[in-house]
Amino acid sequence: MQAVRDGTHWLLKLDENSDLFEAIAGFAEREGVHAATIPFGIGMFYEASFGYWDGARYQPHDLTGRQEVVALHGTIARADGRPSIHLHGAVSGADHRLVGGHVLRAKVGVLLELAVDTFPGRSFGRPMVESVGLRVLDLEPGADV
Amino acid sequence: MQAVRDGTHWLLKLDENSDLFEAIAGFAEREGVHAATIPFGIGMFYEASFGYWDGARYQPHDLTGRQEVVALHGTIARADGRPSIHLHGAVSGADHRLVGGHVLRAKVGVLLELAVDTFPGRSFGRPMVESVGLRVLDLEPGADV
Amino acid sequence: MQAVRDGTHWLLKLDENSDLFEAIAGFAEREGVHAATIPFGIGMFYEASFGYWDGARYQPHDLTGRQEVVALHGTIARADGRPSIHLHGAVSGADHRLVGGHVLRAKVGVLLELAVDTFPGRSFGRPMVESVGLRVLDLEPGADV
Repeated sequence: MQAVRDGTHWLLKLDENSDLFEAIAGFAEREGVHAATIPFGIGMFYEASFGYWDGARYQPHDLTGRQEVVALHGTIARADGRPSIHLHGAVSGADHRLVGGHVLRAKVGVLLELAVDTFPGRSFGRPMVESVGLRVLDLEPGADV
Repeated sequence: MQAVRDGTHWLLKLDENSDLFEAIAGFAEREGVHAATIPFGIGMFYEASFGYWDGARYQPHDLTGRQEVVALHGTIARADGRPSIHLHGAVSGADHRLVGGHVLRAKVGVLLELAVDTFPGRSFGRPMVESVGLRVLDLEPGADV
Repeated sequence: MQAVRDGTHWLLKLDENSDLFEAIAGFAEREGVHAATIPFGIGMFYEASFGYWDGARYQPHDLTGRQEVVALHGTIARADGRPSIHLHGAVSGADHRLVGGHVLRAKVGVLLELAVDTFPGRSFGRPMVESVGLRVLDLEPGADV
């Protein structure tokens, strides 16, 4: 992975075969990023799964084969002492039609250009909210206490 | 709504049932934001309408039920003394296929994570351009005078 | 084209009939931008072609007629002494369904609002990588030498 920054604004280049979540988590750990947005990513996936939340679970849609990454957006927080990465995205294949949703997993094909904007000194949380059944972003953990 | 900032870079968390345009307009009024980009939003809508401009009007596509928000991008300006918010976006449902366009209205489902980048000291305009039939962004109101 | 900035953060308004790549390249040349991200663009195209990389070439999907621009993301680098612009995007037409991929060409319809974040003092490269058959972003040209 290549990674360059200007202030709080980063651009990463993820390499072919990288696991998307592992690569971003590794970057966050190395650079001490506990709070960030991921404005966009473009490139290709060669394998991916997108989820639709039906209120009880993520219904998955699995894709194999190269796909153009057309949308990819998210946030980096901390949960259980590790990076917690929330991504939504969409891809297009040979028919050029877009499919996507909540990103469950993805492997990079060819390359992925990914922007990250950090919030230095902050740590976002992502606690499980039982009434929802999902982990939910908390921008100010402890602020309600 | 939670809202945190680092310089000109904000991240908001909109709550379930929020009206998307009212929530962003309320934020803009409270914080005095008259010029900004909305790089992305992710989360869910439980109701939304997307428009396609046919040259004379927006042909609407109404959705009910929970949808994953996969694309959401826009700008904040001022028009008629109020925030003027322009958003395009797309969502996916249980079939994981994306539908979208110009966002006419939306209600947040579960949550929406939304980034905002402000241009302090600026005020973008969005005057009606009669020849087009639409309000059109003006980055430097008065500059042509 | 209108263009305003706050530090490294720009917002451009491209006019109807503009060629997307020529307009961005002209901006990059005028402002000396050799390294940047394009977080998003919204507005309309009236003509566009999106490619799917099949491993050997881009299979094109050509669209005519007005389309809502729902996703548009990319990077600006330098190659052969000129701006090298990589864009992925998607549009929706009257059926509100999204089609997209690697942007091969596009003409602006009505207007296009486009954000650009620059990396001052940097120059990204986009050398041809023969083993891939594509130009690939290099964030630190010469760093491996």
